Amino acid sequence: MLTVYGDIRSGNCLKVKWLLDWQGMDYRWIEVDIMSGGSRTPEFLALNPAGQAPTVVLADGRPLAQSNAILLHLAQTSPLIPSDAYDRARMLEWLFWEQYSHEPYVAVARFQRLYLGKTAGEVEARVMEREDAALNRLEAGLADRDWLAGEAFSLADIALVAYSRMAADGGFDLSGRPRLRAWIARVEAALGLDPYD
Amino acid sequence: MLTVYGDIRSGNCLKVKWLLDWQGMDYRWIEVDIMSGGSRTPEFLALNPAGQAPTVVLADGRPLAQSNAILLHLAQTSPLIPSDAYDRARMLEWLFWEQYSHEPYVAVARFQRLYLGKTAGEVEARVMEREDAALNRLEAGLADRDWLAGEAFSLADIALVAYSRMAADGGFDLSGRPRLRAWIARVEAALGLDPYD
Repeated sequence: MLTVYGDIRSGNCLKVKWLLDWQGMDYRWIEVDIMSGGSRTPEFLALNPAGQAPTVVLADGRPLAQSNAILLHLAQTSPLIPSDAYDRARMLEWLFWEQYSHEPYVAVARFQRLYLGKTAGEVEARVMEREDAALNRLEAGLADRDWLAGEAFSLADIALVAYSRMAADGGFDLSGRPRLRAWIARVEAALGLDPYD
Repeated sequence: MLTVYGDIRSGNCLKVKWLLDWQGMDYRWIEVDIMSGGSRTPEFLALNPAGQAPTVVLADGRPLAQSNAILLHLAQTSPLIPSDAYDRARMLEWLFWEQYSHEPYVAVARFQRLYLGKTAGEVEARVMEREDAALNRLEAGLADRDWLAGEAFSLADIALVAYSRMAADGGFDLSGRPRLRAWIARVEAALGLDPYD
């Protein structure tokens, strides 16, 4: 059986849980408390030398890390990966963009506000500006579509919703972004999740 | 014919060039000077609202961004993507790790040293420490293998070598990392590149 080492408060870890639940796959979840160093123990580093959660151990005992690589592996025969080559490429574009231009800002702002107790003004201005731009790009990217890549619900929606729905935790206001809010509700419904807030 | 909008000094853009050359594909290269705002013009933003180079325009006129997503699309029928599912997943893990834990540090240090003229001590300590850890992880990851994913040269080697070979530009010393240096030479030879320095 697949084992997931994940912190249930982390959007990156939740992505993996949601996909497994959506696909009805059996798995064992081992909670890793990132805040108290759970992803830096010798045991964890033996599984993933990068010390990052989530890390999964496949049924044959081999480890795999990086949330979006895990999604692509676990969904490889699923309709969550578009069959059209261009739609699939755009899905990949969103997955890489998420880790480069979205998660590093929203997750940092959320962490500092929620877990370090910083006030809005104490989060680095650059982090706030870049995430604001990322949220604007998502709003624009949803102008003429229900789902991010192609015509159907895909891994891009699962990966991008993880931190988008938590944006308020980082001090971001989605009220002026109606398409983004409607898309978040749509993805939550597709995944069978209760609204985040 | 494929068109690449890229800055020839950027490792992310060079990845795409190297793959196209290795595959013997015809393409048109349009130089974008990122430093002088070439990726923020209205024309460029119409192709890629994220304002990031490289961006390619496929033969049918549709755009695609994110260097590693472009590699995966252009190499989709190539031996550069392992046929074994686990090797393929590990290749993807390296591609996402590259954009999250390697490029954001080495590219920033290189940019500040090479283009802003900062001295070693002026680059943020956090950037130097994280890239040092990334280079250590690469050295360890090459302990028992010639290539990063599976038994053969793959997209992981192309993506990871781009900034690894430029690490000295950012002030990083590879002399204590013999496996990393040997792998850089191996990838350069596979791509038909002259040594970087």
